[in-house]
Amino acid sequence: MNFSSRTDLTINSGLNDIFKTRDSETISFAGGLPDTDLFPRQELAEALQKVITSDNPQILQYAGKQFLPLREKLASKMQKEGLLTQPSEILLTQGAQQALSLIAQLLIDPGDGLIVEGPTYVGALAAFDAVEPSFYEIPVENDGINLTVLEHVLKHHEVKMIYTIPDFQNPTGTVMSVAKRKALVKLANRYDVMIVEDGAYRDLRYSGTQLPLIKQFDTQNRVIYVGSFSKILAPGIRLGWLVTNTKILSDLNALKNSCDIESSSLILQGVNQYLEDNDLNQHISEIHRVYRHKKEIMHQALINYMPDSVKFNNPEGGFFIWLQLPNEYDMNQFLNSYLLPKQNVTLVPSKNLFASKNILNQARLNFTGSTDQQINDGIKRLGAGLKDYLMKKTVSC
Amino acid sequence: MNFSSRTDLTINSGLNDIFKTRDSETISFAGGLPDTDLFPRQELAEALQKVITSDNPQILQYAGKQFLPLREKLASKMQKEGLLTQPSEILLTQGAQQALSLIAQLLIDPGDGLIVEGPTYVGALAAFDAVEPSFYEIPVENDGINLTVLEHVLKHHEVKMIYTIPDFQNPTGTVMSVAKRKALVKLANRYDVMIVEDGAYRDLRYSGTQLPLIKQFDTQNRVIYVGSFSKILAPGIRLGWLVTNTKILSDLNALKNSCDIESSSLILQGVNQYLEDNDLNQHISEIHRVYRHKKEIMHQALINYMPDSVKFNNPEGGFFIWLQLPNEYDMNQFLNSYLLPKQNVTLVPSKNLFASKNILNQARLNFTGSTDQQINDGIKRLGAGLKDYLMKKTVSC
Repeated sequence: MNFSSRTDLTINSGLNDIFKTRDSETISFAGGLPDTDLFPRQELAEALQKVITSDNPQILQYAGKQFLPLREKLASKMQKEGLLTQPSEILLTQGAQQALSLIAQLLIDPGDGLIVEGPTYVGALAAFDAVEPSFYEIPVENDGINLTVLEHVLKHHEVKMIYTIPDFQNPTGTVMSVAKRKALVKLANRYDVMIVEDGAYRDLRYSGTQLPLIKQFDTQNRVIYVGSFSKILAPGIRLGWLVTNTKILSDLNALKNSCDIESSSLILQGVNQYLEDNDLNQHISEIHRVYRHKKEIMHQALINYMPDSVKFNNPEGGFFIWLQLPNEYDMNQFLNSYLLPKQNVTLVPSKNLFASKNILNQARLNFTGSTDQQINDGIKRLGAGLKDYLMKKTVSC
Repeated sequence: MNFSSRTDLTINSGLNDIFKTRDSETISFAGGLPDTDLFPRQELAEALQKVITSDNPQILQYAGKQFLPLREKLASKMQKEGLLTQPSEILLTQGAQQALSLIAQLLIDPGDGLIVEGPTYVGALAAFDAVEPSFYEIPVENDGINLTVLEHVLKHHEVKMIYTIPDFQNPTGTVMSVAKRKALVKLANRYDVMIVEDGAYRDLRYSGTQLPLIKQFDTQNRVIYVGSFSKILAPGIRLGWLVTNTKILSDLNALKNSCDIESSSLILQGVNQYLEDNDLNQHISEIHRVYRHKKEIMHQALINYMPDSVKFNNPEGGFFIWLQLPNEYDMNQFLNSYLLPKQNVTLVPSKNLFASKNILNQARLNFTGSTDQQINDGIKRLGAGLKDYLMKKTVSC
């Protein structure tokens, strides 16, 4: 019995590696985990209690359609950000991950061209792998995707979709400039390509000025925006959404039906009740305060403990700092031979974050899932491990 | 911009039609809806409240792995039914629908042979359509799938997977005999085919003797069992499971990661807590009592009100009674021209329940989602409509 060809590609995506080491001894900068202390447990408990014991017995039934009140709230949220949209253009999904998976299923046949940033979100690569595209990888710069390389690829290859994370990119933490956002939409129009704008971290800006959505420059219904509650409420509710025109939405909803029929009414109505009874923006402000502080702790620790040859950035938001060793070094080798066995620290090496799997010297550091103490201790150990590794490696060359 | 080829197939699956008419005037025998009065809302509310306000802050975090305590309970449940299995062989899914979708993604490449019963579960057809198989349809008889036709297909075509609902089949309500269960496994062994055994209605037997699972006769890890909480607890929690060996399970779990990362920890832990604090078997007994009664009401009403040329069965469990008009009639035409506009009653015509879409004279009637009064009134109106339709149709011929 042979399995389907799409299976070979997905199984080794590396998505699982991110969760692998989770014992109490290890300091993990690997996961994309929010701080559990920030989850509004009591408020969510009250909201769930309210809807499940309400007069509406349909709360645990098949809903048969997308839950309107939550779509209305999300449309209103997007409108406040400057996007002209309607509830009928919002699809609720099982986390942002399902949105990416459904979009890939809708747009991509095996072999179709799909452009991703290099590096990018490993879970997106896993979702896309399942539909067997031809990947084209465009380097990410400090102000977002490299437009020269992008246009070169669009000119010479048939491409159906561009996937980008313009705000506090996972994993690099970079933000795409307004000029590049506008230029990206123009290129998509010229070459008849769809854009998937992943805004999973967009609400998490700790300093600087928020930029408009790529979708705000969209005049031809080419941009599908994907949002997530995982980082601003909690991942355990598995709730995301996407914004697109009603035609594409209808197709995506039919695909969602075939994948899992619908999301849990209990969760959808519970979160809707939470949003009615609480101020989400105030909650997000509190998240900003905590994560801004954690990021500063990590950035200062990196300044204190990193060897001179190691580069890192200081992003204005999101979950991650990006680390770069000199070109000749291999972060996987360092992790498995030094950092994890000797220092008991983990991170995500760059290899699996590139569709091409050919960039080895970089790594993603998460600062939101650890305590201040863990961040400082972990970066100190990382620094000691790197000094050891870089020296030995130099000697052995 | 062209969409992927798999999209064309899924969009018109008919899965949505089942939920279409849900106003208070219409009596619907169309949905596969449980009786909302049977949902243990208070008990589930207490269980959710307990886990979300517990000392464990991980309740709303990414879990990073399949939740063990619930897998243990499901392994124990399956063991009590006679299946030798372990928690490591249980995968928790987003309803049984996701299990079907993942299995199809794992096993089927476009054009691969896939055997389904005719008629079958419309949601399975939707899940399978998305991977573009070559469908082979085997007639369902009173004691399950027709083995002669099945073997003929297996002998002459390359087939990768057989999908069957042996217990209270959706939509016919039939049960596969023990002899056929054994023979099916032998055929699968001989022709190197996987079997997907959908047990969504298995726990809902109202009379007669429960039969062993097909998987109990499986000696070569060819049978993947799929279970669901939708019918024994509530659909709104979106919780199902599958049983297979650890190798296949690991691949299916990687695919689930790519589709939605994981299911909601809150739901998984809440249901686990419900199962610790309550007696599921006692709850199922109460469901039996109510549905046995509803089925008898519908069956008696059918006896009272159907014209002589209309056939129907009296299943020993499940959600559905199967209705057959003489061959020359078209149930879709009847529904749209008579039943819905004139009698304000709906059902599911057979056309979309066949992969071949070429059987028009039959229909599925659901008896669990309506009150006793609605069942009697609706069947009475159905009978009047049919008499009208059959007579006019005859006259015009």
